[in-house]
Amino acid sequence: MTDFFQGIEPIRYEGPETDNEFAFRHYNPDEVVMGKTLKEHLRFAVAYWHSFAWEGGDPFGGQTFLRPWHPQDDYANAKVKADAAFEMFEILGVPYFCWHDADVRPEGDSFAESRKRLEEITDYFGEKMEETGVGLLWGTANMFGHRRWMSGAATNPDPDVFAYAAASVKACMDATHKLGGQNYVLWGGREGYETLLNTDMGREREQAGRFLQMVVDYAKKIGFPGQILIEPKPQEPTKHQYDFDVATVYSFLKDFGLETEVKVNIEQGHAILAGHSFEHEIHLARALGIFGSIDMNRNDYQSGWDTDQFPNNVPEVALAYYEILKAGGFSSGGTNFDAKLRRQSLDAEDLILAHVGGMDVCAQGLKAAAAMLEDGKLEEARNDRYAGWETGPAKEMLAGDLESAAARVEAEGLEPEPRSGRQERLENLVNRYL
Amino acid sequence: MTDFFQGIEPIRYEGPETDNEFAFRHYNPDEVVMGKTLKEHLRFAVAYWHSFAWEGGDPFGGQTFLRPWHPQDDYANAKVKADAAFEMFEILGVPYFCWHDADVRPEGDSFAESRKRLEEITDYFGEKMEETGVGLLWGTANMFGHRRWMSGAATNPDPDVFAYAAASVKACMDATHKLGGQNYVLWGGREGYETLLNTDMGREREQAGRFLQMVVDYAKKIGFPGQILIEPKPQEPTKHQYDFDVATVYSFLKDFGLETEVKVNIEQGHAILAGHSFEHEIHLARALGIFGSIDMNRNDYQSGWDTDQFPNNVPEVALAYYEILKAGGFSSGGTNFDAKLRRQSLDAEDLILAHVGGMDVCAQGLKAAAAMLEDGKLEEARNDRYAGWETGPAKEMLAGDLESAAARVEAEGLEPEPRSGRQERLENLVNRYL
Amino acid sequence: MTDFFQGIEPIRYEGPETDNEFAFRHYNPDEVVMGKTLKEHLRFAVAYWHSFAWEGGDPFGGQTFLRPWHPQDDYANAKVKADAAFEMFEILGVPYFCWHDADVRPEGDSFAESRKRLEEITDYFGEKMEETGVGLLWGTANMFGHRRWMSGAATNPDPDVFAYAAASVKACMDATHKLGGQNYVLWGGREGYETLLNTDMGREREQAGRFLQMVVDYAKKIGFPGQILIEPKPQEPTKHQYDFDVATVYSFLKDFGLETEVKVNIEQGHAILAGHSFEHEIHLARALGIFGSIDMNRNDYQSGWDTDQFPNNVPEVALAYYEILKAGGFSSGGTNFDAKLRRQSLDAEDLILAHVGGMDVCAQGLKAAAAMLEDGKLEEARNDRYAGWETGPAKEMLAGDLESAAARVEAEGLEPEPRSGRQERLENLVNRYL
Amino acid sequence: MTDFFQGIEPIRYEGPETDNEFAFRHYNPDEVVMGKTLKEHLRFAVAYWHSFAWEGGDPFGGQTFLRPWHPQDDYANAKVKADAAFEMFEILGVPYFCWHDADVRPEGDSFAESRKRLEEITDYFGEKMEETGVGLLWGTANMFGHRRWMSGAATNPDPDVFAYAAASVKACMDATHKLGGQNYVLWGGREGYETLLNTDMGREREQAGRFLQMVVDYAKKIGFPGQILIEPKPQEPTKHQYDFDVATVYSFLKDFGLETEVKVNIEQGHAILAGHSFEHEIHLARALGIFGSIDMNRNDYQSGWDTDQFPNNVPEVALAYYEILKAGGFSSGGTNFDAKLRRQSLDAEDLILAHVGGMDVCAQGLKAAAAMLEDGKLEEARNDRYAGWETGPAKEMLAGDLESAAARVEAEGLEPEPRSGRQERLENLVNRYL
Repeated sequence: MTDFFQGIEPIRYEGPETDNEFAFRHYNPDEVVMGKTLKEHLRFAVAYWHSFAWEGGDPFGGQTFLRPWHPQDDYANAKVKADAAFEMFEILGVPYFCWHDADVRPEGDSFAESRKRLEEITDYFGEKMEETGVGLLWGTANMFGHRRWMSGAATNPDPDVFAYAAASVKACMDATHKLGGQNYVLWGGREGYETLLNTDMGREREQAGRFLQMVVDYAKKIGFPGQILIEPKPQEPTKHQYDFDVATVYSFLKDFGLETEVKVNIEQGHAILAGHSFEHEIHLARALGIFGSIDMNRNDYQSGWDTDQFPNNVPEVALAYYEILKAGGFSSGGTNFDAKLRRQSLDAEDLILAHVGGMDVCAQGLKAAAAMLEDGKLEEARNDRYAGWETGPAKEMLAGDLESAAARVEAEGLEPEPRSGRQERLENLVNRYL
Repeated sequence: MTDFFQGIEPIRYEGPETDNEFAFRHYNPDEVVMGKTLKEHLRFAVAYWHSFAWEGGDPFGGQTFLRPWHPQDDYANAKVKADAAFEMFEILGVPYFCWHDADVRPEGDSFAESRKRLEEITDYFGEKMEETGVGLLWGTANMFGHRRWMSGAATNPDPDVFAYAAASVKACMDATHKLGGQNYVLWGGREGYETLLNTDMGREREQAGRFLQMVVDYAKKIGFPGQILIEPKPQEPTKHQYDFDVATVYSFLKDFGLETEVKVNIEQGHAILAGHSFEHEIHLARALGIFGSIDMNRNDYQSGWDTDQFPNNVPEVALAYYEILKAGGFSSGGTNFDAKLRRQSLDAEDLILAHVGGMDVCAQGLKAAAAMLEDGKLEEARNDRYAGWETGPAKEMLAGDLESAAARVEAEGLEPEPRSGRQERLENLVNRYL
Repeated sequence: MTDFFQGIEPIRYEGPETDNEFAFRHYNPDEVVMGKTLKEHLRFAVAYWHSFAWEGGDPFGGQTFLRPWHPQDDYANAKVKADAAFEMFEILGVPYFCWHDADVRPEGDSFAESRKRLEEITDYFGEKMEETGVGLLWGTANMFGHRRWMSGAATNPDPDVFAYAAASVKACMDATHKLGGQNYVLWGGREGYETLLNTDMGREREQAGRFLQMVVDYAKKIGFPGQILIEPKPQEPTKHQYDFDVATVYSFLKDFGLETEVKVNIEQGHAILAGHSFEHEIHLARALGIFGSIDMNRNDYQSGWDTDQFPNNVPEVALAYYEILKAGGFSSGGTNFDAKLRRQSLDAEDLILAHVGGMDVCAQGLKAAAAMLEDGKLEEARNDRYAGWETGPAKEMLAGDLESAAARVEAEGLEPEPRSGRQERLENLVNRYL
Repeated sequence: MTDFFQGIEPIRYEGPETDNEFAFRHYNPDEVVMGKTLKEHLRFAVAYWHSFAWEGGDPFGGQTFLRPWHPQDDYANAKVKADAAFEMFEILGVPYFCWHDADVRPEGDSFAESRKRLEEITDYFGEKMEETGVGLLWGTANMFGHRRWMSGAATNPDPDVFAYAAASVKACMDATHKLGGQNYVLWGGREGYETLLNTDMGREREQAGRFLQMVVDYAKKIGFPGQILIEPKPQEPTKHQYDFDVATVYSFLKDFGLETEVKVNIEQGHAILAGHSFEHEIHLARALGIFGSIDMNRNDYQSGWDTDQFPNNVPEVALAYYEILKAGGFSSGGTNFDAKLRRQSLDAEDLILAHVGGMDVCAQGLKAAAAMLEDGKLEEARNDRYAGWETGPAKEMLAGDLESAAARVEAEGLEPEPRSGRQERLENLVNRYL
């Protein structure tokens, strides 16, 4: 045992009335909703990077967190960090975690050394996972932090960087496969541009397409049973990222014939930066058949950058889970807190309680969403709105041609009478379940 | 002759030094650049709606413009309006104009009446066009203004509205065809949603796809030789529009197999609202093979709504034309001023001078773009940046698999050394041509 | 009785479990919280303009609402509208309403005629108010809708418009006074600019300052006992409005020596447009001693324009009421729904239910805020954070000079140790009361 | 001589036609405009932090720049850095530079050590300044980078941090005074909040007010002849910064009676983040009498964070200098490039050329602004717009009361006729000078 979380007992469900900060008020992992336990529905995961690797810096200030595993360029400390991480997973009772290579092992002097360290630390993870029963939701390669990636990974103007990216993804996918990871995620942190003046998007898009195809082929070759996911983001770190949003990723998948192979990991914060809502992105991914998993962390509406805050607004979270439940719930995906503490939240207790609060908010949201769905009034109203399209003539018109559709207007003297969209009534209805 | 532009002579090119407000300082229509005249390059068009139909209102205030053709629900006034419009086209010497049905004829009591009025006024346009030599860049149907469209046109929950949309597009395409229009534009002003709570995006997307297919089929059937264009916009009037941006439109075209039939009409203001730049959207459309035409009007960076201002920033405009020239210039498309006067610009002179200023800014931008392209330094720097990809081994790697690409990293001990992106130098280079 | 709300009974409180859409689930007007009834705390008001005068248009489309009192340029219809309005006030049981002159009477052919119509319709209001017991929260002059105001009211370049503004405010304040209005509001819808190129802000600021002084003096002269309020807004309709936010209004009040005479009416939507949160603006106004009243309507975070939606997010509303309760609650102010139906919400029922939902959300928010405040844990944590400043030496340092403060650092070898800001724990704490 | 800029000769003016990247095309320091040389007008300064201390990191990636003076925690390297910096100042021919304490000396183990290092390095600066003739535009204390400042400096909940801030400002002001600095700047990088839940703005505002008073008093005491400046910024690093914009700073100065003692240093990027334009903030500061100096670096309009880019858009820069010239030009202030290279611009040449390009853009802008002002057409149009206010009756009305102003409306049957605001014509006029 490390000392880091000393004195913090595993978090238990004590119900809404408890005064205990260190208890769940809404997340009862064994509570059954719509035929599954909350644990099975929510499939919580902790992100290693923000919770254990991030040091509390921002563009105007350096490290604020002083952790026992600092400095992080020491391999022995990487194990201390892992020990603390698994202690937290157990304190929280989360079934999953996620990592990048760069979070879990110090960078080596060569790729080979970095790879070996990754293998070694993930072997150590394997032991810890066996001991604790914690699983791996997904692994990924950090191809944006080191200066070699500054102009992109797969989309880099330098083919050697493309090779380096291939080696990195291969190593991370191997490790993910070894640990039984449920998914493998690609986030293109530097796949984008700072200025169009030096950029050829057509060419870079082609590189990205080939790279993704290679990754899919490799996963098949090694028999990786998990889902490959792309995580959309519109901007930051680059001025313009290529995986802007769900629609953009879909256009790319269609172009390279990968729309049945790859799905999306949607983050609330990224949805907001892209000018959408979280529920919009999930709804669209569902409609396009590419919904995979979520990062449950939001941005601040007042800020134009990526704040990665823990969720705390139940009504917003409920609308997201409503779309997820409509998609049939998660299969390989889950609820990953890609969330970092505020830079002033220095204490180990802050780290625990941030997750406790987030898990409670998600549990409340999911239960509200399930109640809405089971009750059926919202879907009834929606179906009623489109009922006209269920008639024979409407279907026929949709299958027909423009002239036939047009002809009816004058023949029948059509003058369609608008019907209320009832937005406020539906908003009231939603508030009823919260 | 109407009285409206009385005393305003046709605008002539007088060169940069002139003090005459009513002269072009940069737009010499006959000046030859890269083998074509400026007139042929720029293919200017005036938008009937903003310049002649808009009355100067905004969400907090009513009409400020008092025009001789008001009120606009009078058919005789529609002809007065047309007379004034063609007078302005001649004063400016623009080769094209664009219209919606709703701009040019008052709404009738029935669709049939509206259609007949459209036929009548477009016959009148035909005479005017013959007299003046002004052509039609594009026609379009206004399917967002009238209350029947409040919940969408092709994506409406009411199939009768879909039929009405079919009839409207058919009538407008017929009229566009009759007038020799070079393009037909679809802008989905209400194809979007106000709240996801009452919306089924999958279903509405399907309706939109079928509708577009019908339009394409009809255009073929009647032998319309023009290009069909979709105009992306992310929001406003609806909270979320389906044709968000170029990438989103492309994903839709791919899904419905229409990516070779339909192109995009890109507006600077819409690009900005979507979180892109104008040049980004044109660059992407070019890379995807769907670049069609532009609306040359910008939003105010301080405002989050659609201000449709005339262009006045030459550096921005130059970067847009650079992308257009790289795309080979316009074929059927052109430079449409989908721009409205500020609400306080009451006078006929304001209307003329806004266009004069915009045309001059575009001419300056195009000439700078041509100089950049002819000089070649920018493309040279770009090509140099990607030169590594032109080697045999790089091409081989791109065609190969992940393991082979990865293997080289350890085998050769690759540690790619970053090269400067030279952004500021390239920005200096661009400024040299302005 | 008009037919408009036919069949809709007065809304009663039925408790959270009711299935009745036409009942309050949380707003029990007589429930006592912190020594006052909810009715006394919340002081709800309906805004005449959005609820009865707005016709459902937006910049891309015209009227969608067909009301029995249309067209609104008919004086007889103004009375029908008033009848319907008071019926709604009674159905909802709201204690207050608010108006602009332009909402309640059609514009006359001259100012004198407009003024007489205002006097006549407000006399009629007086009778209705006596019958129903509904009071006037505030009146105001619409000095932004008519084209005469297009370049501002008090800040207009034309002194005659200044005079017209003086006459308008005088007439509206007289009517407000006659009806026992609790406040008089100034919203500078066109006090701002479209372009700096034609604007002299120093001069226009001076005009605004003098105007406000005149209004304050006039209110004193006629013995108007209500509070004068300014409503901040950063933009829209103008590109830049002078009353940008609370801090800007305060700077203006200080400059003209009016900081004890005038307070602010804060709207959530305007706070968001200005880059703040609602609670920020209330907190700051409280700290500066100028908190007056609120407009409880929000913008959509995805949209950059003023959507004036009904509130529906309880957590947000709770934080606002927390600040209000800390300010001692409303004195003359209240909770005004300056909120409009979505343009597709056509029915009389939508209008009722939008208010019912909003009132319930406010009641929930206020009760949560009161519980937080009574519980005291949040204030305790805040006070604890600043406890160091309550010591003698700290107070002395604050009253002293830079050198003395500085001297201690080296003398005592100070190296302050940061303490956790505990943001996530506090967010969890807040969620406990919701 | 260091090796860093080896091979780069001092930059000379060669005129617009030169092909030499390493020459000025527009900035001829000795060119006289409106009675002053460009050097005197523009008063260029280089910011030490971005140009020499920033290592090329961002929230998603670490250091990209490898400089001879790394690592920066070594005092000897601080001198190497200083040598390189002064070499660059001479290469560019800039008359000024600016620094924070944290840029120029490594943090010591105690405040005393840090202070001594600051004294030592600034003594070294003193020698360099004498050798080169380069002056100090301003100094400032970095009170946001180190973890001690994470919750603010003067507004910290911990009084010891306030003391530390006092000591830091004292040390920096002493050093600034010693070096003949023309201004002393306060930028409240952490004076703001992350969450209102743990914040008492009234209290923190009081602390800030006292602190500023102490600073002003100390400057007087030591006879510092420079100007004290506050630099407004709305957000980033904190979610909400107290010095939001010019209006907010002014409200604060008025409250603490400091409006004649302290002026503002306005940055284009910060103006944009606050929802204004650069020219707006300068215009307002001029109108309020608190215009001091500028940071000439912009944000990217597509990004919601602080990108601190070099200026490259001449039309924007021209409007800023127009306002500055109207304010009488700089007195103690100047044009500081608080601009950082893009993270991919790795080379020494990039650093030189970024400044060269920026200086040329500013020179173009200033010359255009001067031409506009000398020509007088823009001011003539503005004055003409307000001419009505120059009449006796208008002035009388402004000095009078509401009733008198109102009375005229009915007595004279006033119905003011709107006049065109002529925005597009004025925009055309501006483009004429560019």
